[in-house]
Amino acid sequence: MTQAPDVTLSRAPSHPLIESNRVEGTRVFDRDAKQIGTIHHLVIEKVTGRVVYAVMSFGGFLGLGAHLYTVPWEKLHFDPGLGGYHTDITEGELEEAPQLPHDADRQREEELRRYWNLPSYWA
Amino acid sequence: MTQAPDVTLSRAPSHPLIESNRVEGTRVFDRDAKQIGTIHHLVIEKVTGRVVYAVMSFGGFLGLGAHLYTVPWEKLHFDPGLGGYHTDITEGELEEAPQLPHDADRQREEELRRYWNLPSYWA
Repeated sequence: MTQAPDVTLSRAPSHPLIESNRVEGTRVFDRDAKQIGTIHHLVIEKVTGRVVYAVMSFGGFLGLGAHLYTVPWEKLHFDPGLGGYHTDITEGELEEAPQLPHDADRQREEELRRYWNLPSYWA
Repeated sequence: MTQAPDVTLSRAPSHPLIESNRVEGTRVFDRDAKQIGTIHHLVIEKVTGRVVYAVMSFGGFLGLGAHLYTVPWEKLHFDPGLGGYHTDITEGELEEAPQLPHDADRQREEELRRYWNLPSYWA
């Protein structure tokens, strides 16, 4: 599932765009640049086209025994040097975090965002 | 490939979020609310997490003989009533439009955006 990092031998910046069907498998690194998981898929606000959550796969090996967690997009920061996203989220925080069902309403989203100390992104 | 439209029998608004791996197949309608194609995948700016292009499948039947076109996201507008996106793009415009290769640089993007009378979205 893990994609090859987006590297080039030239000094040209990495390509700034990525196809949604290639995001799956993009790696996520912790503060120590250790890989802690991969992005499973993104959650997009239909009307605005903003990515608002990443559903991340943590733990397990090659997808076996992995758990999926919905994380606010703001907690991930793309690092072209790493070829992936880094985050300051810890495993402990993640285990306690509320989850977001497929048909979550705004109230469930608010609970999730409060947990992560983030305001709601909608008007 | 076409997803069921996101409809409910209640008056509750459709769910505002969609998973990136479910966007594939979302229908696109023209000014007359006639289905003209489906979304094949999205193109996302890695750093900001903004959807900047939709790669649309036009023509063909069930994906056979269909052509893929990269369209600026601004040309699509989500319509909860239709359960898909509507656009004022015509087939003729699309046939003449420049395409965007996988490794497109900003210059190629500018050509594409000029064609569609849109400014560049990056700083």
